[in-house]
Amino acid sequence: MASEMKVRIGGVEIGGGAPVSIQSMTDTDTRDASATTAGIRALSAAGCEIVRVAVPDEAAAAALTEILSESPLPVVADIHFDHTLALSAIAAGVHGVRINPGNIGGRGNVRAVAEAAGEAGIPIRVGANSGSLPKGLLEKCSAEVALESDAMALALVEAASAEVELLDEFGFRDVKVSLKSSDAVVTVKANRVFSERFPNPLHLGVTEAGLPERGVVKSAVGIGSLLVDGIGDTIRVSLTADPVEEIAAAKLILESVGARVPRLEIISCPTCGRKEVDVVGLAERMERALRAADASGDLKSARIAVMGCPVNGPGEAKAADYGVAGTSGGKVVFFEKGRSLGVFTESEAMDRLLAALGRD
Amino acid sequence: MASEMKVRIGGVEIGGGAPVSIQSMTDTDTRDASATTAGIRALSAAGCEIVRVAVPDEAAAAALTEILSESPLPVVADIHFDHTLALSAIAAGVHGVRINPGNIGGRGNVRAVAEAAGEAGIPIRVGANSGSLPKGLLEKCSAEVALESDAMALALVEAASAEVELLDEFGFRDVKVSLKSSDAVVTVKANRVFSERFPNPLHLGVTEAGLPERGVVKSAVGIGSLLVDGIGDTIRVSLTADPVEEIAAAKLILESVGARVPRLEIISCPTCGRKEVDVVGLAERMERALRAADASGDLKSARIAVMGCPVNGPGEAKAADYGVAGTSGGKVVFFEKGRSLGVFTESEAMDRLLAALGRD
Repeated sequence: MASEMKVRIGGVEIGGGAPVSIQSMTDTDTRDASATTAGIRALSAAGCEIVRVAVPDEAAAAALTEILSESPLPVVADIHFDHTLALSAIAAGVHGVRINPGNIGGRGNVRAVAEAAGEAGIPIRVGANSGSLPKGLLEKCSAEVALESDAMALALVEAASAEVELLDEFGFRDVKVSLKSSDAVVTVKANRVFSERFPNPLHLGVTEAGLPERGVVKSAVGIGSLLVDGIGDTIRVSLTADPVEEIAAAKLILESVGARVPRLEIISCPTCGRKEVDVVGLAERMERALRAADASGDLKSARIAVMGCPVNGPGEAKAADYGVAGTSGGKVVFFEKGRSLGVFTESEAMDRLLAALGRD
Repeated sequence: MASEMKVRIGGVEIGGGAPVSIQSMTDTDTRDASATTAGIRALSAAGCEIVRVAVPDEAAAAALTEILSESPLPVVADIHFDHTLALSAIAAGVHGVRINPGNIGGRGNVRAVAEAAGEAGIPIRVGANSGSLPKGLLEKCSAEVALESDAMALALVEAASAEVELLDEFGFRDVKVSLKSSDAVVTVKANRVFSERFPNPLHLGVTEAGLPERGVVKSAVGIGSLLVDGIGDTIRVSLTADPVEEIAAAKLILESVGARVPRLEIISCPTCGRKEVDVVGLAERMERALRAADASGDLKSARIAVMGCPVNGPGEAKAADYGVAGTSGGKVVFFEKGRSLGVFTESEAMDRLLAALGRD
């Protein structure tokens, strides 16, 4: 179920029915404010809505003032080990802080951060991570449940719960939570259990997912499985890659679960022995032409089917707004909502499609 | 829940606790037996375990004898519209047939295919597809439930159920089922409902998923969400691409849900402002070197962590078999199961890793 509670990171609402937002993290040295600001602008242009920056030392915290004055996105400070860095980041005006239950220190430190965040009116993300759990917790959970993935999920839930409850004890309830593992199944299990127990908004992600090829699949499985059931309020795809690639993957995941409507979605059949045209080439050419025509984003949103043959073509083209289906002689049937508009060459069909999508 | 029933496609068991198998479909003209056989060999080399070929006409059915004599994989004939093609394919010796409830014709046709398959001792896949549902079914379901995705899922379940029950009436129970939509959420909903009602093995796939970038994400979300809950016995990733690309994506999905153990899995952190090395470059170089060293597949299976900094590095490297974490001076800490083996140059660490994985 979607989180009942809502938090706000700058102007972005998270939870309580707000659209699922996309976030990422800069990969620049935070002490270099202008490089970091440039990274944030690139993420913003790609569609990122919240950005996180690592604050590993006081020099990084000191750079936040300049970064915040230039950033087009709300900025969250990522803090490990030293709670005084969270205090400095809050003083600099960040829109949220992320702390890790496994390594931020004792009650006093957490209380100090909660008080500062409360005064500043900003939320805290409690970010539990399978790689940095409180000492001994995994061993305790492993003794309680048989399956290794269940034990890890339980440990993540317990680590996050303890921190949420501690913050609650200090009267601080403006809390967003993440429970991340590099294992997609553990991530799914942990978030399912946590979402049953707590109303807090959830930040979803599979951590250390790796290089894009494997990382996108792992993230789609882990994040997608949760979003399909309405669990999750903001997502971060963690890839070992330019952070801008994370945004493209995040958008595709949100579109795949119906949380966002793609502007121009091409559904196209796998090729098979029944195909009467080169479907791969046709779909690629159509995607390229549509992207080029839509460079300034003024085509109408639509779902377009590219089908290799008349077997599935007409049926799928009915579900799509427009479609082409291969037919004999290298031509295509051009469809609008299942109704054939005739047989055309590929280029004629493309012209008709672009006209239908509002290109002058 | 995993399917209780088991079917066999050639030597491959599906359902009843068998490992989840990977399948694909040739994209050659089936009438060209030698091109089709070459396509099957390429799929087999990539890791495909079952192959489907379209049989759109009698000439294609006639080519099956030669294809079957050469194919290293069990072959399933994909039949639409004309049930006599199924009879020809069965006579040629295929290991399974796929029919579509929406278009195979009346009771008599289904009975004839069931009798032939029963005599040949091969299973039938009932493949319901949102693009080719029996006439009027979607409209009926739309009147019963409010949400469009629920109506489509219900229509898929009803189409498949009716065919399974019809086959059962004819005494034929060796039935595998697929319920596919180009919408990942509909696919998940339909398979969840069907798996609650029937014990039949399930073939999972998101149909017409599109070009690889979007198609892999859609498939990972749709197929992965089901496998996470143990639903699904064989999978096909449908991409508008060379079918060999489908196998790579299918493997990554199965590895992401823990259904297969990757031989060499690199988990690597997203880069952030805390990194002390070029993580993207390091992870890419390590992956390349590992793949090259493992070209003949004789390195030990292992999970290897590549981390940019000491914050998450040691924790993740504890979960991994081996790991490197960036440290100052462009060097890396090399770990084995969380235990530091010292600080090395990248090339020294790589040599140690390869030695640990059994390279001479």
